[in-house]
Amino acid sequence: MALFDKFKKLADARAALMATEPCPLGTRIDEVFSPTQGRIGDQEVILAGTNNYLGLTFNSDCIAAAHHALDAEGSGTTGSRLANGNYSGHQALEIELARFFERPSAIVFSTGYMANLGLIGTLVGPGDTVVLDADCHASIYDACRLAGVDVIRFRHNDPRDLDKRLGRLGDKIDSTLIIVEGIYSMLGDRAPLKEIVAVKRQHGGYLVVDEAHSMGVMGEHGRGLAEAEGVEADVDFVVGTFSKSLGAIGGFAVSHHRELDTVRLASRPYIFTASPSPATIASVRVALDIVANRPALRHQLWSNAERLYAGLAHAGYELGPQSGPVTAALLDSPQQAVAFWHALLEHGVYVNLVLPPATPGGRALVRVSVSAAHDTTQIDRIIEAFTTLKPMLSSSAKP
Amino acid sequence: MALFDKFKKLADARAALMATEPCPLGTRIDEVFSPTQGRIGDQEVILAGTNNYLGLTFNSDCIAAAHHALDAEGSGTTGSRLANGNYSGHQALEIELARFFERPSAIVFSTGYMANLGLIGTLVGPGDTVVLDADCHASIYDACRLAGVDVIRFRHNDPRDLDKRLGRLGDKIDSTLIIVEGIYSMLGDRAPLKEIVAVKRQHGGYLVVDEAHSMGVMGEHGRGLAEAEGVEADVDFVVGTFSKSLGAIGGFAVSHHRELDTVRLASRPYIFTASPSPATIASVRVALDIVANRPALRHQLWSNAERLYAGLAHAGYELGPQSGPVTAALLDSPQQAVAFWHALLEHGVYVNLVLPPATPGGRALVRVSVSAAHDTTQIDRIIEAFTTLKPMLSSSAKP
Repeated sequence: MALFDKFKKLADARAALMATEPCPLGTRIDEVFSPTQGRIGDQEVILAGTNNYLGLTFNSDCIAAAHHALDAEGSGTTGSRLANGNYSGHQALEIELARFFERPSAIVFSTGYMANLGLIGTLVGPGDTVVLDADCHASIYDACRLAGVDVIRFRHNDPRDLDKRLGRLGDKIDSTLIIVEGIYSMLGDRAPLKEIVAVKRQHGGYLVVDEAHSMGVMGEHGRGLAEAEGVEADVDFVVGTFSKSLGAIGGFAVSHHRELDTVRLASRPYIFTASPSPATIASVRVALDIVANRPALRHQLWSNAERLYAGLAHAGYELGPQSGPVTAALLDSPQQAVAFWHALLEHGVYVNLVLPPATPGGRALVRVSVSAAHDTTQIDRIIEAFTTLKPMLSSSAKP
Repeated sequence: MALFDKFKKLADARAALMATEPCPLGTRIDEVFSPTQGRIGDQEVILAGTNNYLGLTFNSDCIAAAHHALDAEGSGTTGSRLANGNYSGHQALEIELARFFERPSAIVFSTGYMANLGLIGTLVGPGDTVVLDADCHASIYDACRLAGVDVIRFRHNDPRDLDKRLGRLGDKIDSTLIIVEGIYSMLGDRAPLKEIVAVKRQHGGYLVVDEAHSMGVMGEHGRGLAEAEGVEADVDFVVGTFSKSLGAIGGFAVSHHRELDTVRLASRPYIFTASPSPATIASVRVALDIVANRPALRHQLWSNAERLYAGLAHAGYELGPQSGPVTAALLDSPQQAVAFWHALLEHGVYVNLVLPPATPGGRALVRVSVSAAHDTTQIDRIIEAFTTLKPMLSSSAKP
């Protein structure tokens, strides 16, 4: 069957690598007890591989709001925002997001992936240019493909390379998007945003910052890396998600360009999709309020992040360059990473396995993420498991 | 600002056409009382412009299941199905969908739009071919763009044109998808699926049927048009959504090709997105069971659909070719359609306004949809409003 040939090799490779149950990719989580505890098969685990950075998925106020919306407005809208799916809560959330980011315009999308498709894929098209950090998320690359725009990659976190590439654009700079992320999801490192902004100021263009992993996590008010670096005025568009610090599902774009409002009239991923469920909208509205008003959660997250990073570094692991909600431990080979993932699970720690080609530099890694909801004991148990298992790595043969 | 120029014309045209509040596109629905009743501003309305075909959004069993999932598993998974977002409910729903469609493989996606992107955009790529009905949904066109596949359109619902176009493909037929929909969302007409299947049998290729508007609505067991026409064995892939008869948000693909399971390893819209919320999964599982076991809802829907269609035809409206959950009343111009939409609202009836270029043949129309939850009195009130307002149309000037 010609159609399926392209997947067979991938499937065979995966099957050979992952013969042992449970499968490290798409592991079935049988029960979820809290933001940080679950059960996989017979094993109770500390969840150290989620994006639940503030631990809000079980926040009683978020849950209560979702319960209320379910009763008041039902299980779904069954319609697009441009048709019957524009409930008062959807509009209220957009107003609240705009206020939170201190910008006039905000659009809510049904997933984070669709926020990038719906913003980028609408702002630019054939003849326009996107200059993006090479390590940008798949949804940003897919948005560019959907837009049919010219794509130029600059070296990850390298403002000089960006400078060089923007310098070649000439008049095209007026319809060019520069796209970076606040925190990159694989290694947990941050964009050098001040330097990137300086380059943008020199050349022009529009700057998009995807704050998916940094919103709620960085900045005095939780607005992300741009706030933390004091460069918000130079960021034209912020894209973000509801499925990380806000504990739900969905995405958004905000801008100081009021014209963002008109994007919604032309954005196919916005128009041709059912709008988020009332329960999701309700819980996100409460979560956004918590992000704005409970900085203590952010402080706890960073305290946990720094404790974990120091512990894993001390145990001798090769880590990403910076501490943060995501800490990557770089390993020698996919085989080693799979075995290590299983060993961590047996020690009661669930992390994410990430294999090439999805990883920067083609390295196999385990991605450990922390939450404000982890307590010190849990962080120490994660460190302890890594420390105990370190010897199995040094004895492992490279491929 | 060069970037926004492309939207300005669209925004200005819309603003001129829609100066009167409330705006017919993206109308804010201030309160939702039931699947069929809401409030827009001060006006209580019959909701006759949703995709809530079986009225399940307020079904007490669906709502109870969603409440339970919220408490047990939280407001969101905060992760992809390939990472930490694969809860036992997500897998159970896939097993139940496969069983419902009597096929071995099913994949759940986070939105219906993403189901088409995630299936079509992964199955085919550059060098492959998609032959699709010209009136296919935007998400199917976008999936093809994302795939970078060669796209050939055949004339809407014209199997002879399909035959001609498939005949030119030669060996390429082995990696060709033929894509049609069960019920088309704008005019409510159905694909001539028996004839399409006969053409496919003659030439080869893989047939994808998007049953978004027909699942739960057609077929003895609610499996859609392919079941109703007795041609399920010839359909390679069924794509569908949770945001219509199932009353929530999300999408799915099912197939008798077990290889569909491997698609999930390569499908970027599946991999790089947070999975559906536990509450959504829980309500959909109950709704699917209701679709399978309460055919009376389908009968009620069709009774309502036929009553509405007969009533609007009797009142002298130009309608789509067939009765069904969607009935389109074709109007003379966008200006007339906007005025008519406002007049219907003043009579307590909310319908969808659809303007060119989104419409087949470039016609302006209002799209009226019915639900099993409408009672006869509501259907008659809709007919009465249309009947009362008919004179305003004949006196209206053509553009």
